[in-house]
Amino acid sequence: MIVIKVGGGQDLNIDAIVADIVHLRGAGHELLLVHGGAETTNEIAEALGHPPQFVTSESGYVSRRTDRRTLEIFEMVYCGQLNKMWVEKLQIAGVNAVGLSGLDGRIFEGIRKETLRVRVEGKRMVLRDDWTGTVERINTPLLRTLLAAGYFPVLTPPAASTQGEAINVDGDRAAAMLAAAFHADALIILSSVPGLLRTFPDETTLIQEIPKNRANDFMQFAEGRMKKKVMGAIEALQEGVQKVIFADGRVAAPITAALAGGGTQIS
Amino acid sequence: MIVIKVGGGQDLNIDAIVADIVHLRGAGHELLLVHGGAETTNEIAEALGHPPQFVTSESGYVSRRTDRRTLEIFEMVYCGQLNKMWVEKLQIAGVNAVGLSGLDGRIFEGIRKETLRVRVEGKRMVLRDDWTGTVERINTPLLRTLLAAGYFPVLTPPAASTQGEAINVDGDRAAAMLAAAFHADALIILSSVPGLLRTFPDETTLIQEIPKNRANDFMQFAEGRMKKKVMGAIEALQEGVQKVIFADGRVAAPITAALAGGGTQIS
Repeated sequence: MIVIKVGGGQDLNIDAIVADIVHLRGAGHELLLVHGGAETTNEIAEALGHPPQFVTSESGYVSRRTDRRTLEIFEMVYCGQLNKMWVEKLQIAGVNAVGLSGLDGRIFEGIRKETLRVRVEGKRMVLRDDWTGTVERINTPLLRTLLAAGYFPVLTPPAASTQGEAINVDGDRAAAMLAAAFHADALIILSSVPGLLRTFPDETTLIQEIPKNRANDFMQFAEGRMKKKVMGAIEALQEGVQKVIFADGRVAAPITAALAGGGTQIS
Repeated sequence: MIVIKVGGGQDLNIDAIVADIVHLRGAGHELLLVHGGAETTNEIAEALGHPPQFVTSESGYVSRRTDRRTLEIFEMVYCGQLNKMWVEKLQIAGVNAVGLSGLDGRIFEGIRKETLRVRVEGKRMVLRDDWTGTVERINTPLLRTLLAAGYFPVLTPPAASTQGEAINVDGDRAAAMLAAAFHADALIILSSVPGLLRTFPDETTLIQEIPKNRANDFMQFAEGRMKKKVMGAIEALQEGVQKVIFADGRVAAPITAALAGGGTQIS
C-alpha cells in the first residue's frame, strides 16, 4: 500500500498526479489518496465575506481558526469543489473513484479540542467555538471493503469527533495515521516544493535523505506548514510505515519520481 | 426498502427528519436518503458573483443552466456544505452515515445532454457548455455493500456521465430511479408543501390519493418544480415501486407521518 497526500497548492500538477495514479494502479500498486484544499478555502472564505484567520498554538504550530461558519466553508471546498474535482478527473481517466471525507463512516476519527490555547499577536488566548482536533483512529474495514470491490477511495478532511461532530484536522497528519493503519510501504507527501529544504525557499538546498532515527533533528529545517508534514512523517515512521517521501507535486509523474528516489526520502 | 428524498428548501425540518430516520432504522426499516440543495446553491452562487440562471426546455421543464462554474458551485453546496451537514447530524444521532454524490463510484450514472434546446424569453436557443443529464443507471452493488456493512448512504447529485464527467441531474428523478433499482416499498418525497395541491399554493386543496394508473392525469396540477416530482413518481411506479408519497418535510416525524397515510399517496 502506498498512501499519497496531495496538498492544496494551486500550482500542483493535478492532471499529472491523476495520470500517475492511473499508471501505478495499472502496474498493480495499491494506492490511497488524501487531498487538501487550504489555498482554495482561503479564497472562497474571502469571497464569502468570512476571511480566514490563523492562530499559533502555544507549541508554535499554525492552524486555521475554525468557527462554525469556517467549518462550513471548509467542507464546501474540501468535500465539495475539490473532492469532486479529483473524483471527476479520475472517473474520466477510467478509475472508479469514491470521494469521502473523514466524517463519512468515521473514516478519520479523533478527539475535538474543547478549548484551543493559542497566541494571537503575542497574547495568550483560549478559544472556544472551535472545531478542530487530531485524527486518532482510521476506519480501515470500510476502506478495505471499497478497495476489495475495486473502488479507489479519495479522502479529505474533516474528520469525525468521537461525538460525531465534524472537526478540521491536519491533512498531512491524517494521511500519516492512514499510512500507519495500513502498514503502508510508503507515504508520499506531494506539495509545491521539491521536498524538505535546508534553507527555505532555496530549492537547491533539498535534503535528499534522512535516516528514520534522525528525523527529529530535521524539524529545525521545517518552515510553516512543513512543520506538520515532518511531524506527520515522524508519527508515521514510529507507527511502522516503511518510508516517508516529501516530493514535488508540480512535475510530470510525481509519484513515480518519488518512488524512484526523488524528493526527501526518510527511511 | 424506503427511499426518502428531501428537497433543498430552507424551511424543511432537518432535525425532525434526522430523528425520524433514527427511529425508523431502530424499528428495522431499511432506508436510503437523497437530498437536494437548490435554494442554498442559489444563495452561494449569488454571493460568489455567479448568479443562478434557469432555462425552460422545449417541453416546458425548468432547469438550472449549468456551465462549468455553476457545476463547481453546485458541488460545493450539494456535496460539501449540505451533504456533510446531513452526515454530521446523523453521526451525532448515532447513525453511521456515509455521504456520497452520484459521481462517486458512479452511483448515479446517466447521459450528458451534449446540447440543450431551450427557450429563453420565448426565443429558441441551443446551449453548449452545459453539464446536465438524466440518471439512467444506479450502482446498486456499491450501495448494497455499504448497507450490508451497517452504513447509511446519504446521496446527492451530481451524477456521472457515461464518460465520467460530473452532470447536474434532477434529484427527484434520481431518487425515483434509485427506488426503482431497489424495488422499494415506498419513495417518499419531502418538500415544503403538504403534497400535490389541486390549487397551488392553497394547502387546503391537498390531493390525498391518486390511483397509480391515473397519475398522468394529475400532471396538470403540478406547478414549477412539482412537475419533475410527479414525472419521477410516474417513472418510479412504472418501474415497480409500490408507492410514491409526496409529503410535508416541515413537520415533526415527517417520514412516519407519510408512511401512516399523510400527504399525497400514489399507489
